[in-house]
Amino acid sequence: MAESTVHITGMTCGHCVETVTKALKDLSGVNTASVSLEEKNARVSYDEEKISLPVLTKAVTDAGFEISGT
Amino acid sequence: MAESTVHITGMTCGHCVETVTKALKDLSGVNTASVSLEEKNARVSYDEEKISLPVLTKAVTDAGFEISGT
Repeated sequence: MAESTVHITGMTCGHCVETVTKALKDLSGVNTASVSLEEKNARVSYDEEKISLPVLTKAVTDAGFEISGT
Repeated sequence: MAESTVHITGMTCGHCVETVTKALKDLSGVNTASVSLEEKNARVSYDEEKISLPVLTKAVTDAGFEISGT
């Protein structure tokens, strides 16, 4: 099990938080995703044997947001 | 047929626009709803015999936004 914090640019409201949360939680291999509007990040717990960090960040950018760091 | 412009506070992104648009279009009696993030308003075309302006504005506030004028 791995845990990463992904820094995200472009979330402006609770709807954005919901969108990012769903994008992450829908991925196979992701156990928990906690997204913060205030901290502009997502803390993701995932199974490294099933999914990698680049795939996680791609899900966020595909949802319309930018990654400002991991 | 009536057409009203509802001024809305609290929309910050495209997700908010989608939420307000859906809230309005889902109402029976509403024909078209055009929501603008830039202009902070919604232009709604509706059948006055089926729905009234207070019901329209309530749908917007129920969706989590504030009405700043009609």
